[in-house]
Amino acid sequence: MTKTQQVRLARRPSGLPDADTWDLTTEELPELAAGEILVKVDFISLDPAMRGWLNDVRSYVPPVGVGEVMRSLDIATVVESRHSDFAVGDIVSGTFGVTEFAISDGKNVGKVDPSVASGPTWLGALGMPGMTAYFGLLEVGKLRAGETVVVSAAAGAVGSVAGQIAKAHGATVIGIAGGAEKCRWLTEEFGFDAAVDYRNEDVLRRLRELAPQGIDIYFDNVGGDILDAALANLRFGARVVLCGAISAYNDDKLPPGPSRYMSLLVFRASMTGFVVMDYADRYGEAVAHISRLLADGTLKGREHVVEGGVGQFGETLNMLFTGANIGKLVLAL
Amino acid sequence: MTKTQQVRLARRPSGLPDADTWDLTTEELPELAAGEILVKVDFISLDPAMRGWLNDVRSYVPPVGVGEVMRSLDIATVVESRHSDFAVGDIVSGTFGVTEFAISDGKNVGKVDPSVASGPTWLGALGMPGMTAYFGLLEVGKLRAGETVVVSAAAGAVGSVAGQIAKAHGATVIGIAGGAEKCRWLTEEFGFDAAVDYRNEDVLRRLRELAPQGIDIYFDNVGGDILDAALANLRFGARVVLCGAISAYNDDKLPPGPSRYMSLLVFRASMTGFVVMDYADRYGEAVAHISRLLADGTLKGREHVVEGGVGQFGETLNMLFTGANIGKLVLAL
Repeated sequence: MTKTQQVRLARRPSGLPDADTWDLTTEELPELAAGEILVKVDFISLDPAMRGWLNDVRSYVPPVGVGEVMRSLDIATVVESRHSDFAVGDIVSGTFGVTEFAISDGKNVGKVDPSVASGPTWLGALGMPGMTAYFGLLEVGKLRAGETVVVSAAAGAVGSVAGQIAKAHGATVIGIAGGAEKCRWLTEEFGFDAAVDYRNEDVLRRLRELAPQGIDIYFDNVGGDILDAALANLRFGARVVLCGAISAYNDDKLPPGPSRYMSLLVFRASMTGFVVMDYADRYGEAVAHISRLLADGTLKGREHVVEGGVGQFGETLNMLFTGANIGKLVLAL
Repeated sequence: MTKTQQVRLARRPSGLPDADTWDLTTEELPELAAGEILVKVDFISLDPAMRGWLNDVRSYVPPVGVGEVMRSLDIATVVESRHSDFAVGDIVSGTFGVTEFAISDGKNVGKVDPSVASGPTWLGALGMPGMTAYFGLLEVGKLRAGETVVVSAAAGAVGSVAGQIAKAHGATVIGIAGGAEKCRWLTEEFGFDAAVDYRNEDVLRRLRELAPQGIDIYFDNVGGDILDAALANLRFGARVVLCGAISAYNDDKLPPGPSRYMSLLVFRASMTGFVVMDYADRYGEAVAHISRLLADGTLKGREHVVEGGVGQFGETLNMLFTGANIGKLVLAL
């Protein structure tokens, strides 16, 4: 019998999740049935989208139920197998949740190659954030060489990869992030052409200075005023790619929408939302592409790894909303 | 020498234009030079876009200058010609402005065939509103048979044609308009499948009832709460076509944007703005198409013709913003 600690949703939060949101529970897992594997979770992915899963609303995935183990994507090691596709010692990725151990029937579980990249990188540049950056820019945004791309939350998991992929495709890339340290990372470590510090600069004005011809692609991870600042600076035929709106994730009611949305008409521009899971059958193509960029040093994976137990999940998650992380935020058990 | 009365912009309005906005002036036109025509204006088009032209802001056309003759699209008769392409008696359309007579060099002046349709219809279903409906639905919206289309300001010049074109292409069409009389027009005269009276009904809830599978194309002429109501009821892959935002045209500052814009992400939908002039080289295709629908009775042109002098321009224009018109609003001199 395997004992596992798990984090469950205790009650739906209003605003920022806090200690009352989570329950730390212990459970004994049953014996494996035929066709099942037992995995030991090594790395838990912390994602802004998790905040949305806590609300009881219709969205692109069902909400996490009260009393359920919190949903998360993990990198794990197979420690017992009664499944012909998996052997003990395999490194896998799957939605095992915020738990130390989990039993799975292997559906939607993928093997990852530890020789290509570390577990955290498989949750970052080679995981959902990398997939989101790749398909958002190239498929939804239809990036062409020579274009000007602006990325918000640019020091985050998705933004840092999106900006680097855009650079690799010949774009001029401007990143928006909060604080001087993140901005320094953007230009010095990730190779962005310029950075705007939204905490200390007038974003609308700075974008006008940095992109006097206008923005071809705005890759939006934040919504709010920064989305408006980008809308005011579009170029004809621009594409706004909606990837998320972290600025509003903890709001109880809908914040005002982008008041400058009629720029879409003036600039004959489009704003398109997407959900990366729609591209699941093409993840292999993106993984191959990003692996090459990682291997030749064109793209730097960057993870912010917090070491601890599953009990640290709640406070680690909130780092996303206070902007404490640079790169992909991961909890290493 | 020809004397002409004209309406000029006296001062830029704040909010709804009023008597102080306009000057009625009289001018003597010079003799025609070689290559020029003199036209007598018969019908003046009243358009919501005119409100935007009064603001001193960067937009898709330059603003009308203070002291200048108000810009308008007209149907006129050639009364004198020193231009080889035009003969006396030709009926033409052009941006002659709010004036009784005008001199033109013939650039951007098109001959219209009075045997195909009347002057007002050449400003409506066969004019800019018809072009806007046609390219907005078919090119920007990429309408396919069997889809559900929602049109706002549906009893207006663009909306009434858009809904009828959508019906002709095999769509289910729901119109949104203000008041029972307009809604009756939509279903009984224009053949819409259903109508929602935004003055007396909860639009969000009614759209959910009328389109339980969601909206494929939302053709937006109004912005504001109605845009939000549509965003809340999209179907996967929906296209929101931004044609205008009459609800905000008289606002001094930007109203809140669509707070439900993140529905674009949930529904993998897009919102795209367009300006019909971009399709100018294809107007012939749209005129041919709409002429056939008019000829076989599939599409009913509907104009709201006010008879009077150019001095009535100001009060006639404001009918657009109080919603007093059904169909294309035209001032007949």
